[in-house]
Amino acid sequence: MILLLGASGYIGEAFVRELQRRKHEFIPLARRQVDYTRFDVLLNFLKSKQPELVINAAGFTGKPNVDACELDQAGTLVGNTLLPQTIADACAAAGVPWGHVSSGCIFSGAKVSENGTIRVEKDMTQPALHALAEKKSAAIHGFSETDTPNFSFRDRPCSFYSGTKALGEEAIAGIGQSYVWRLRIPFDEFDNQRNYLSKLQRYSKVYENVNSISHRADFAKASLDLWERRAPFGTYNVTNPGFVTTRHVVALVEKHLRLTRKFEFWANDEEFYKTAAKTPRSNCVMDVSKLLATGVKLRGVEEALEDSLKNWRPEK
Amino acid sequence: MILLLGASGYIGEAFVRELQRRKHEFIPLARRQVDYTRFDVLLNFLKSKQPELVINAAGFTGKPNVDACELDQAGTLVGNTLLPQTIADACAAAGVPWGHVSSGCIFSGAKVSENGTIRVEKDMTQPALHALAEKKSAAIHGFSETDTPNFSFRDRPCSFYSGTKALGEEAIAGIGQSYVWRLRIPFDEFDNQRNYLSKLQRYSKVYENVNSISHRADFAKASLDLWERRAPFGTYNVTNPGFVTTRHVVALVEKHLRLTRKFEFWANDEEFYKTAAKTPRSNCVMDVSKLLATGVKLRGVEEALEDSLKNWRPEK
Repeated sequence: MILLLGASGYIGEAFVRELQRRKHEFIPLARRQVDYTRFDVLLNFLKSKQPELVINAAGFTGKPNVDACELDQAGTLVGNTLLPQTIADACAAAGVPWGHVSSGCIFSGAKVSENGTIRVEKDMTQPALHALAEKKSAAIHGFSETDTPNFSFRDRPCSFYSGTKALGEEAIAGIGQSYVWRLRIPFDEFDNQRNYLSKLQRYSKVYENVNSISHRADFAKASLDLWERRAPFGTYNVTNPGFVTTRHVVALVEKHLRLTRKFEFWANDEEFYKTAAKTPRSNCVMDVSKLLATGVKLRGVEEALEDSLKNWRPEK
Repeated sequence: MILLLGASGYIGEAFVRELQRRKHEFIPLARRQVDYTRFDVLLNFLKSKQPELVINAAGFTGKPNVDACELDQAGTLVGNTLLPQTIADACAAAGVPWGHVSSGCIFSGAKVSENGTIRVEKDMTQPALHALAEKKSAAIHGFSETDTPNFSFRDRPCSFYSGTKALGEEAIAGIGQSYVWRLRIPFDEFDNQRNYLSKLQRYSKVYENVNSISHRADFAKASLDLWERRAPFGTYNVTNPGFVTTRHVVALVEKHLRLTRKFEFWANDEEFYKTAAKTPRSNCVMDVSKLLATGVKLRGVEEALEDSLKNWRPEK
């Protein structure tokens, strides 16, 4: 039996669907039934039920966006740092392995190899990307699991949200047996306020950038596959291989959804942060070689995007 | 046997002295021997040694003052919030009671009763205090253990330090068997950069305010007394009964240490924060009725101050 925490959340839902599809027995534990944020309560529950795996899909993301986390720092810390530590401690004490939904948003930019050296470009905007693309000698690489987060309380600037996610990874590192599954900007075919493809359509203006992103069901599948294959515990970037620019995704949305609306873009970061955003946003490219090397399959980002848009289901 | 964490720190030293005086067997555990910040490591250590009590005197205070915590938010969170939670979890899993050195700095101001009602005055400056003293109908009360912190991430403004201390109390609340001992502005007869009486003498200008304060050895004694008397677990304010104004303490320092130097004061809070401080300071009056009701003895603040200054030992 698998114990699922945060089952009613946006990512939790994807685990519910995937576990049902696999006919895998699981308990979607609600906090009002058992307050799993309390160490003693969770430890007793784990000892009595002895699940084979605990999945933590609970967390504090901020509504409508990450700016809200700046206004509720205690809630953000409790949800993204203290809760993972509580779960790590309880699972270790009960001898139960677990998986934590973390985020790639603890990185900013990308790695660039050029002339035999690799450097980090923290600010990989679309113009910067194009400038690089014109140089045949340069190549873009994603951050791997051995890279230290560069968008965290230890490497500022960062958003408070990202700071707490990075510190959450730190808080659980080396405790018991755990997977850290890093998600980035979830999307799929279901129109939803948390879906990247929906968000893009609802913004008054769009923010240009370069990112690796995660198809929600693909993320849940790959995360469970790691466990089912008994891949070594540890951290895994779980984004669809590759990366996309906002302009490219907007073009795909326009094409597949036959939108009449014309998308506008913020002139630059300065205008975006002055007008629309309070706290810095993470935009980053992730490397998923570690995941793929385990044998787990994950569609390329283009295929996942096309598929989502072809099967688009607007909210009623 | 008592296990003491943070034995080499300013408050840890006081526990070492008091435990030695009581001839109580204890282990002053250094992190380089056993990394007690790691849950598994600490849990195994507790299971094998089965101490009767764990004391956590470790924490992150910021050097030379609390402003430094604004620059190392990760370190401040790790030391004051994540570490207490790790200890709480490990002690609960091992069935070991423990005591945590917390701080009264999660409060600001005082409570004022007047005309049959009690209100919180968050900004209890010296002029405000004097204005109240002239009214015979008003009385000042300290914050008690049932009051909710009003200088925390949940009740801003606060310093990052205070936010992490308040969140530390939240993180360990209700887990296992624990004492939370709240210290405020430690002082004693030993000249030291952490000693309030030394700090006052080293400031170029002094910041006027009203505070409850803790004699360092009295604090360690009272905390251990609570445990030895088997007082109920929970939170206790451990400050010397009463409160003092900075001007009064300066007058005592001038009198007892026969200083020729004339102390200068900041004109007001505005000047202080503009010139000398980056983050807001907590100044508060604490109520110690709960501690005294257990039968634990604690000298009044005047006696403790006079005694420290009469036995003053300048640093070499």
